[in-house]
Amino acid sequence: MTIRIFLALMLTQFSIQITSAQENEQKVRLAKLVIDSAQLDSYLTFLKEGIETAMRDEPGVLTLYAVSEKEKPTHITILEIYADEDAYQSHLLTPHFLKYKNGTMEMVKSLELVESVPIIPGMKIK
Amino acid sequence: MTIRIFLALMLTQFSIQITSAQENEQKVRLAKLVIDSAQLDSYLTFLKEGIETAMRDEPGVLTLYAVSEKEKPTHITILEIYADEDAYQSHLLTPHFLKYKNGTMEMVKSLELVESVPIIPGMKIK
Repeated sequence: MTIRIFLALMLTQFSIQITSAQENEQKVRLAKLVIDSAQLDSYLTFLKEGIETAMRDEPGVLTLYAVSEKEKPTHITILEIYADEDAYQSHLLTPHFLKYKNGTMEMVKSLELVESVPIIPGMKIK
Repeated sequence: MTIRIFLALMLTQFSIQITSAQENEQKVRLAKLVIDSAQLDSYLTFLKEGIETAMRDEPGVLTLYAVSEKEKPTHITILEIYADEDAYQSHLLTPHFLKYKNGTMEMVKSLELVESVPIIPGMKIK
């Protein structure tokens, strides 16, 4: 009986450790968007404001590095890195994210979110 | 005649300024690769060594942020940022890049290089 309780406690602790490790893992994602060309300038204004505010006000938003393709300026890719899943969930509730999301809804022709794994975690931009 | 010489000098200076601005512009690119699944581990070893050496030894290599897709680990995307075109051209001649390039040639099933423009130049990773 004592052994059973001991094993149960061990399992509980093991499970807590797994949860904790998952919570502290960076969330890394590629967002791939295609924007309506007639609304591209307006979309970029929303995007820039949303990114600059998030980077300034949210410590858990580690980067939102957005590029447009030279040959296809309506094709946008964003490398998104969040400190962990909690930081991402908080980001979704911020006024600046909601302003971007609601403001650009009609401008985005397609959105693909690709959950990713960094090959070298902790890599920076000099 | 004096005016002609003056205009010619102005044009020369204008052209020098354009060249200088181009040389100082960051080169930003997305490299999209698909790797032979049987050789993925070996490919990643080459990639990591090449990136770590470039980041350490080349001031003009600002980042090589590489990710693999969670659902398709053989699909790799690298956000490449170089200080300028010269920094990129120098990178191509380094022993570590040539080791990576020659060592992985038979492992790469496809490679797409997408020249890109940063939406917010100077964006970092915290």
